[in-house]
Amino acid sequence: MSVGIVEQQSITFDRELRLESGRLLGPITLVYETYGSLNAERSNAILVEHAWTGDAHLAGKRSESDTKPGWWDAIVGPGRLLDTDRYFVICSNVIGSCYGSTGPASINPRTGKRYNLSFPVITVRDMVRAQELLISHLGIERLLTVMGGSMGGMQALEWATQYPGRIASAIVLAATPRPSPQAISLNAVARWAIFNDPTWKKGEYKQNPKDGLALARGIGHITFLSDESMWQKFGRRYSAKDGLFDFFGQFEVERYLNYNGYNFVDRFDANSFLYLAKALDLYDVAWGCESMAEAFAPVTAPVQFFAFTSDWLYPPYQTEEMALCLREQGKEAEYHLITSAYGHDAFLLEHETFDPLVRDFLERAAARQRL
Amino acid sequence: MSVGIVEQQSITFDRELRLESGRLLGPITLVYETYGSLNAERSNAILVEHAWTGDAHLAGKRSESDTKPGWWDAIVGPGRLLDTDRYFVICSNVIGSCYGSTGPASINPRTGKRYNLSFPVITVRDMVRAQELLISHLGIERLLTVMGGSMGGMQALEWATQYPGRIASAIVLAATPRPSPQAISLNAVARWAIFNDPTWKKGEYKQNPKDGLALARGIGHITFLSDESMWQKFGRRYSAKDGLFDFFGQFEVERYLNYNGYNFVDRFDANSFLYLAKALDLYDVAWGCESMAEAFAPVTAPVQFFAFTSDWLYPPYQTEEMALCLREQGKEAEYHLITSAYGHDAFLLEHETFDPLVRDFLERAAARQRL
Repeated sequence: MSVGIVEQQSITFDRELRLESGRLLGPITLVYETYGSLNAERSNAILVEHAWTGDAHLAGKRSESDTKPGWWDAIVGPGRLLDTDRYFVICSNVIGSCYGSTGPASINPRTGKRYNLSFPVITVRDMVRAQELLISHLGIERLLTVMGGSMGGMQALEWATQYPGRIASAIVLAATPRPSPQAISLNAVARWAIFNDPTWKKGEYKQNPKDGLALARGIGHITFLSDESMWQKFGRRYSAKDGLFDFFGQFEVERYLNYNGYNFVDRFDANSFLYLAKALDLYDVAWGCESMAEAFAPVTAPVQFFAFTSDWLYPPYQTEEMALCLREQGKEAEYHLITSAYGHDAFLLEHETFDPLVRDFLERAAARQRL
Repeated sequence: MSVGIVEQQSITFDRELRLESGRLLGPITLVYETYGSLNAERSNAILVEHAWTGDAHLAGKRSESDTKPGWWDAIVGPGRLLDTDRYFVICSNVIGSCYGSTGPASINPRTGKRYNLSFPVITVRDMVRAQELLISHLGIERLLTVMGGSMGGMQALEWATQYPGRIASAIVLAATPRPSPQAISLNAVARWAIFNDPTWKKGEYKQNPKDGLALARGIGHITFLSDESMWQKFGRRYSAKDGLFDFFGQFEVERYLNYNGYNFVDRFDANSFLYLAKALDLYDVAWGCESMAEAFAPVTAPVQFFAFTSDWLYPPYQTEEMALCLREQGKEAEYHLITSAYGHDAFLLEHETFDPLVRDFLERAAARQRL
């Protein structure tokens, strides 16, 4: 069942947060949504982390007439995987994004103008540092679990390594301990596409630089799909107005990337895209440590990992490395490799493949919490 | 041994070629180089086909002071794989390119101006159709072999299916019977990068649109490498002037793509890039046929295929499909899967891996020709 109509909430922390870069950012606004109720023991809270271009609108609808539910609606609601009759589910928009939380498009109170490129370079750790303010504000000492895919998975990893006492478990999907140079290179050309757009103006645009941002999204989109899913979805179908020999004729996959790219321009800020791409590329679970083993030493929560066979952006071997490293230290880590054609996006598209495993993992976490 | 100093040759056919599109193109100039001598029986000729941004300068040097030999110099020369003491080796620049053969940057004799986008959309079959004029001009009835990688492999396939009587064998490396939608999508975003560049002006530029073309090349470059080779070559090294938190800081792989992209602008025409990308995407070995089996029915020459394990642009399963299809029809087809970390570019970088196999294949072809 759907959680129904939800209202977005917002909180501003009138303080400065010291970032990984050493720079200060503040005041910090975080936009978030919650579903279900926090129990008296405050022990049933689940934090769900969104990916690169996601937002706080995890589940439900904004209004009766809203036809598009939240981005992971399929798993949140009464009787669903994250059962809101039982759990209190929270999702908050990360800093650096453009969906209400403080980001480069926010007004810098010191200047009265948009931050744009004066916004500090942030890391995934900084996103979690800001979230921690929210979780404390909600009076939650310890989250039952923190769960996310892709950049959301990286955030879950940061909770596990930086705030081990604050989580009872973590669920990490389609993530990586550190993006490979290939993944970085694909973000690099996406950045380059925006930098090339003369209307970007080093971030000082009035209107989103549409051609550059649409192309950047098109490049990103390729990395979220797979060779196999593209065969299934598009094949080599050609949709030229003027036959195969039309110079501007487009293959269906080309038309699709184009169409979705330009749609994206209406919903995402180019500077936010750049800041979050940077955060992704810089991500390293062993940030500030000599090794992954050292980074994982503080972890106390059991971690459940999922990788997807056709995910070539953050390939399974990278996820597996983390599970093995935790186990070598005698920690509890599950690793599940899910067969899927959907590439990196599989975690959003095929929740049935991991539902029973997550359900079971959550049951065990809840039992340990005597929930 | 090197073939030494070579001179480029050029021939203009004062006739019109009917293209796959039905359009006529002519007169046609082809630039080519030859190495070694054609024997009296004219039975020792080998045609080597270049890839996307290649040229006719296969081997040797332009002058004594030239420090950069031809693009596949390592395999051509006295005692080398394509032994010029024994074979007569030919390489010609394809039509549509910008290295001397007729392409979009050539002058259209009807208008006295560059063709630019009035140049017809061409196919790999059209490239081979033009080459056939050259081979006939050289008095060669039957090539001992035709050999090429990537787009060069596609050309070899066209010789095998369209001119079966004119070749005694074919060697196809890192090719595909038809690019997958994923490969197409990566060319699509490369095209898009050029289209986005305001200095491209729908092809009517005076100077190459540098930002767009450099980015397009950067995207292409990613597809030529592999996750593994990028780890080896770049890792996650970061080369920012101003520390990790410099907004414009670049990872080493990013800097490399950028540097090489802008270098490419000095050596390749943007419109040629677009026309050849189109030819690649449109390529289908079964073009005009109902199936691959039908397309392969006329093939008489033994074909030797090579695929490379880390080639994700034209993955091995695509090459294997062709070898199996030929064998099912009782034709002679070898398939060799070479373990390599170098991705699609492996065919250019690791000739030692296939040298002995090609040598043996060529010996057998030569024996059949009583060479």
